[in-house]
Amino acid sequence: MNTRQRQAAKLHMAKRPALRVAPSMPLTSMPHISMANPACVPGSGQSCEHALVDRALNTVLYDYENRVSARFGAIVDTLKAILAIQYTPDFVSRAQALAAQNLGYSLPESKLTQTWITGLDMRWLHAYCVLRSFKFCVDQALVDKALWLPYEAIDGQFLRDCGFHTVNITPCADGRLQGLLPFVFRMAPGPEITVRAYAGSLFDIESDMTDWAHSEILRLSGGLPKGAESGNYLKIAVYHFSSASPKHQGCAAHGSNDEQACEAALQRLDALRTAIDSTYGRGAAPDTLLIGLDTDLDAIRIHTPDATGRIDADRFIDASAVYRETNGIDPHAARAALHRAVTARAEGAMSAGMQTLVERLLEANLSQIEYVIQHHAGRYAELGHDEHFICVGDAPTKVHIRNMYYFAHLATVEEGTADLDVGIKIFTGLNLAHGLAIPVLVHFSHDSNVPGGRDRAVLRCRRVKAAIEERYAGLAAHGQLHCQMAVSDRNGTELCCFIEEPPAHAAHGPSAGHRP
Amino acid sequence: MNTRQRQAAKLHMAKRPALRVAPSMPLTSMPHISMANPACVPGSGQSCEHALVDRALNTVLYDYENRVSARFGAIVDTLKAILAIQYTPDFVSRAQALAAQNLGYSLPESKLTQTWITGLDMRWLHAYCVLRSFKFCVDQALVDKALWLPYEAIDGQFLRDCGFHTVNITPCADGRLQGLLPFVFRMAPGPEITVRAYAGSLFDIESDMTDWAHSEILRLSGGLPKGAESGNYLKIAVYHFSSASPKHQGCAAHGSNDEQACEAALQRLDALRTAIDSTYGRGAAPDTLLIGLDTDLDAIRIHTPDATGRIDADRFIDASAVYRETNGIDPHAARAALHRAVTARAEGAMSAGMQTLVERLLEANLSQIEYVIQHHAGRYAELGHDEHFICVGDAPTKVHIRNMYYFAHLATVEEGTADLDVGIKIFTGLNLAHGLAIPVLVHFSHDSNVPGGRDRAVLRCRRVKAAIEERYAGLAAHGQLHCQMAVSDRNGTELCCFIEEPPAHAAHGPSAGHRP
Repeated sequence: MNTRQRQAAKLHMAKRPALRVAPSMPLTSMPHISMANPACVPGSGQSCEHALVDRALNTVLYDYENRVSARFGAIVDTLKAILAIQYTPDFVSRAQALAAQNLGYSLPESKLTQTWITGLDMRWLHAYCVLRSFKFCVDQALVDKALWLPYEAIDGQFLRDCGFHTVNITPCADGRLQGLLPFVFRMAPGPEITVRAYAGSLFDIESDMTDWAHSEILRLSGGLPKGAESGNYLKIAVYHFSSASPKHQGCAAHGSNDEQACEAALQRLDALRTAIDSTYGRGAAPDTLLIGLDTDLDAIRIHTPDATGRIDADRFIDASAVYRETNGIDPHAARAALHRAVTARAEGAMSAGMQTLVERLLEANLSQIEYVIQHHAGRYAELGHDEHFICVGDAPTKVHIRNMYYFAHLATVEEGTADLDVGIKIFTGLNLAHGLAIPVLVHFSHDSNVPGGRDRAVLRCRRVKAAIEERYAGLAAHGQLHCQMAVSDRNGTELCCFIEEPPAHAAHGPSAGHRP
Repeated sequence: MNTRQRQAAKLHMAKRPALRVAPSMPLTSMPHISMANPACVPGSGQSCEHALVDRALNTVLYDYENRVSARFGAIVDTLKAILAIQYTPDFVSRAQALAAQNLGYSLPESKLTQTWITGLDMRWLHAYCVLRSFKFCVDQALVDKALWLPYEAIDGQFLRDCGFHTVNITPCADGRLQGLLPFVFRMAPGPEITVRAYAGSLFDIESDMTDWAHSEILRLSGGLPKGAESGNYLKIAVYHFSSASPKHQGCAAHGSNDEQACEAALQRLDALRTAIDSTYGRGAAPDTLLIGLDTDLDAIRIHTPDATGRIDADRFIDASAVYRETNGIDPHAARAALHRAVTARAEGAMSAGMQTLVERLLEANLSQIEYVIQHHAGRYAELGHDEHFICVGDAPTKVHIRNMYYFAHLATVEEGTADLDVGIKIFTGLNLAHGLAIPVLVHFSHDSNVPGGRDRAVLRCRRVKAAIEERYAGLAAHGQLHCQMAVSDRNGTELCCFIEEPPAHAAHGPSAGHRP
């Protein structure tokens, strides 16, 4: 299915009539409802205009969403236009002019110059453009982000005021959670916020301890912003579910079983606390928060911790219910009702800072709930996979749009085979079935403070790319797999820098201990 | 070659007449000499009894070496004895009695009970016994170590007195460096000393930063022993070379090029300092020390840092030369000469603590130089590979004997393919050529403070074992590859615990994001 076909399909689904709303539910229930939005049903006589929604922010976020989508939407038409002129004089310069004008970048010259012999390799060009358009989004990220960054409800200073010097978030690697920060949480990405996506929200405890240790050294040695050293580290895990199709469109890593997804994330949070307390002494453990996301609606539920930091799977506040219960009343009263609901749920167990953060997250999510109601007909048209490409390695951090890529978080194919196989299977339906190649971005991050880090990231790219092409040799041989390598610097301006073939040097590190 | 054959070969080489000693060299030269020991030639009229040598310690270390060797030396005779009685009544109980008596453990019952049908699988039993004897050594480590542990020249308190709260050592993964701590450095293993072996001493900067961060948090939060918090972290890299066969028996990871081995290790040390200073502020970097080891003689050379911590490849003190220059004089004068030599080389640039440590390391190494002179005829008979098995994953830490195993440090076969291929090639000569299987220990460590860590280590064992058996499928199919999985707890009593087949559950982690 090409982008245009996908958009047509989306349009069709969006126009599908919404089902009747389910009966009103209490704030903390576990809903299993069908297609109607449980917060508010547009066109059903209800006015879906909650007093606490930031409509100006919704407008700029919608602009951002459309800008990014348009960059992918333009690919097929542009390539068709180029195809139409492939035997005309001045083809290369005319093609490049079309690409530059419609897509914002030029195409690899070698792919245009030999077309009189073999014809244009449209499959190659399409896959290239998908990845190149993504890179264009990364390059434009600062400009794009300026639209919404200053207006987000939660920023680093707010987090510090709540008592958190650092926030480390693990959403599921599922593409539907890629708009988490600016859209769902209304959170401004910044140096104090780290996102580490893992399949099933099952973050790696050892790796998370390394992240925590980094912040802890900065805190203990005075390397954090003034005032932050008295704060704590906050780890948030985000699991997800689908209210419309709970058995099919929930978290695949947990067999679309919501309870299992929730419990598994909770266990990791508890394990992280235990590991840090056991290693560095009782009290060292970070604060934790568990959040569930209904990916159909972008509505969250927050599991509030008790006085000991313990979180309970059955103890949460649902933002959809908050929207529904406080819709139609004035901002002051709505905010007071939200405060009362959180206070009642917390039973005096949360710190004041944590309670402030939970209330702000819930209030901020009301805007996203209304965003989906207004701009996506109350529920996303595409409940499941609709990614543009597969990303393998470390997640790029600068583009924040739902369903941008299928993500396989890995350092080696050997460890990530299961995730990769699923990705290839999905794109067999999305791309191969329509004659397109599968675009794969092999992306690793490095830290320019660490000498040699970039070289090692490039070597890892080459090794992983080779392993992918070996595992899916049949696809690779027929041009159905298009791997592009890229690296980003966590501490610099190099972002998603494409690494080109042929390799400058061998793909292996030094070999060991051979004495002939 | 079986163990007995190997021992015979060793004996033959040890009796080979030593060549004439090379002319006396200055303390800091880079020697390229042949078979004679440059420190002292036994039987040449010189008395090789240096006044600073700890002969009592040498005696117990020799006892330790023989104890451990004997456990492997007994395998072939025991298996032959079992083979001889395989058709006798009460075979199983008699075989188990022989194994228990000669090897210290029993054999897997199932491998003895069906012998009337298929005969004993000697290839399997031999490989099993090699790995099981190693486990026996691990189990006996506390008892064995009691022989020498209290008498080592350098312990945690000494290091703290020198101003180092933690010492992290990266030797080359080469099996010839496996006796480093108690023999070469005369250092008592303890919680303040970590050894991380890598091919070519090319340690992973990011992983070393994690090790450093762990200690730094303990230091900053008062988690170190009293008085240690004012100390620094010391990183030591140990490269190696062969004075008798510099072009063939040096460090294979660097093409047996001594200068390259030295420079590469030095670059990693500098990179680690830069990375930590850049990340955590100038002055955070650990102290570093570069040491070269002549694996023929176990003699070290120490590259002393200047006042800024910079180390120079060409600036070192050679312990062989120290031995030679100070042999025959009384302890007080010898120690004073050593002190003068280090002071002259240091040019006032080292801290007092670093100088004390360097002098102690050099003095301690004199004992090992004499050990090799007395117990190994001045130079190890086997200059190259003579390992018992291949170890893959994390190195077990409790057995300290030269050439115990070929080590491939890896988390996945995908990253460690080059190292593994070299190991298989070596054992094709050592074992396959004599009809034996290649014993492979797939060993990973975990931390029992981290919930789920053991399960993840077991999963990693299974994944790596499967990848090895896939890569060397031909060997595996013919019983020429014998993989045993094992895990150790870094913080507990579980050491080299064998993990048995069949797997209790699947070898993969949860798969990601599949939505059908």
